[in-house]
Amino acid sequence: MMNILVTNDDGITSAGIYALATALRSLGTVTVVAPDRQQSAVGHALTVSEPLRVTRFWRDNQFFGYAVSGTPADCIKLAVARLLDRKPDIVVSGINHGYNTGINVLYSGTVSAATEAILLGIPAIAISLGSFDEEVDCSVAARTAAYLVEQYHNLELPPSTLLNVNVPALPEDQVKGIRITRQGQGYWNDTYHERLDPMGRPYYWLAGTYNHLDDDPNSDDVAVDRGYIAITPIHYQLTDEKAIELLKRRL
Amino acid sequence: MMNILVTNDDGITSAGIYALATALRSLGTVTVVAPDRQQSAVGHALTVSEPLRVTRFWRDNQFFGYAVSGTPADCIKLAVARLLDRKPDIVVSGINHGYNTGINVLYSGTVSAATEAILLGIPAIAISLGSFDEEVDCSVAARTAAYLVEQYHNLELPPSTLLNVNVPALPEDQVKGIRITRQGQGYWNDTYHERLDPMGRPYYWLAGTYNHLDDDPNSDDVAVDRGYIAITPIHYQLTDEKAIELLKRRL
Repeated sequence: MMNILVTNDDGITSAGIYALATALRSLGTVTVVAPDRQQSAVGHALTVSEPLRVTRFWRDNQFFGYAVSGTPADCIKLAVARLLDRKPDIVVSGINHGYNTGINVLYSGTVSAATEAILLGIPAIAISLGSFDEEVDCSVAARTAAYLVEQYHNLELPPSTLLNVNVPALPEDQVKGIRITRQGQGYWNDTYHERLDPMGRPYYWLAGTYNHLDDDPNSDDVAVDRGYIAITPIHYQLTDEKAIELLKRRL
Repeated sequence: MMNILVTNDDGITSAGIYALATALRSLGTVTVVAPDRQQSAVGHALTVSEPLRVTRFWRDNQFFGYAVSGTPADCIKLAVARLLDRKPDIVVSGINHGYNTGINVLYSGTVSAATEAILLGIPAIAISLGSFDEEVDCSVAARTAAYLVEQYHNLELPPSTLLNVNVPALPEDQVKGIRITRQGQGYWNDTYHERLDPMGRPYYWLAGTYNHLDDDPNSDDVAVDRGYIAITPIHYQLTDEKAIELLKRRL
């Protein structure tokens, strides 16, 4: 039986993490260690300037998991260093409410938890569903996660690569299948709402609209738009090798 | 004259951002938009669930810049969308107190501000100094930043590439020169201190020691250790292209 660590960035109370943990229990021992509140768009943040609190969280009259007063990356680090008896065999982060495609991958707490796992030498999957509705049916996404956990060993991925999975919020019979994709060029057109608070002081609130820049059918954004489950392998070799020679000549 | 946007993650009160902004004023119009408090290890976080406040911050009896109640990435987005009259020609983030080499690049608010600039189509430099001492001499790092801003146009870097610069905290005559480097394999051995608060409840606080995994002389970690200024070109093409074919065969 596998030891599976489950986390997310929507917080331990979300519907997505409940569906995910439930679906994975048939495959092994599932431990849930997740933020005690919404942590969307935290990126790969760590909590360093204050301590972390851990509380036991119950659902359906039974122990569900550990709620941590930190970010998704904190949850993975603390789980591995302190809360688990042994290193997990795999980390699954999600099910996020809302896609993590295109540029969103950089801001995503869901993906950052999977990244932290990879950094600690643990295989990892991030899984997101294209709906912000807390009542959305998570069953296709949950089954997709379970399928990938089962298959993971056979995939023989490099240890530095995680799977970023995005599932359209469609009834199962309308999902067209799996597509192996690239991180797309989608980005946000930022706008800030400027308003006055009750004291008459201005504040700014980030809004914006998401643009699918490319119509490459192999991008994650386009694949989910067309009804496919998009699976993108992600790694963190950030050095721009091509620029190195250029800089050596010019600096 | 250039329009230069300066930010950091140590906050607008830090010594490093003061030295940086001062050094760049001879090259153009400098606007400082920086977090109103320490934001280390925030990664590429955005503030989405609450509004941002902007206050005018004064130093030496003159206006120094805008203090924002958010992350370094928030500062760049808000500056470009709302606070500046025109898109800056370049963003410089720093001078960070402490290296952003190896794995730290992923957690770094300093680098994330430069990343956000690149995402918005603005050339960017992140600059860090290998000392946490607020009284450290920032002059070599500040001059390095000014030199790179002057040279940037000639480098003809791809628009998706930023420069991550790390400067050893040495007197100028002991700095051995510039080295073009790769992001190293350095990582943290996590430990958490577990203590009891005054109410007797446990809390966990992240500590750890940093490991230079590789002795590749071309890694950023090794270069700064040996007294060189390390310049690493960083980009955000996170798709693992090699894994795509592998997944297509196996899923």
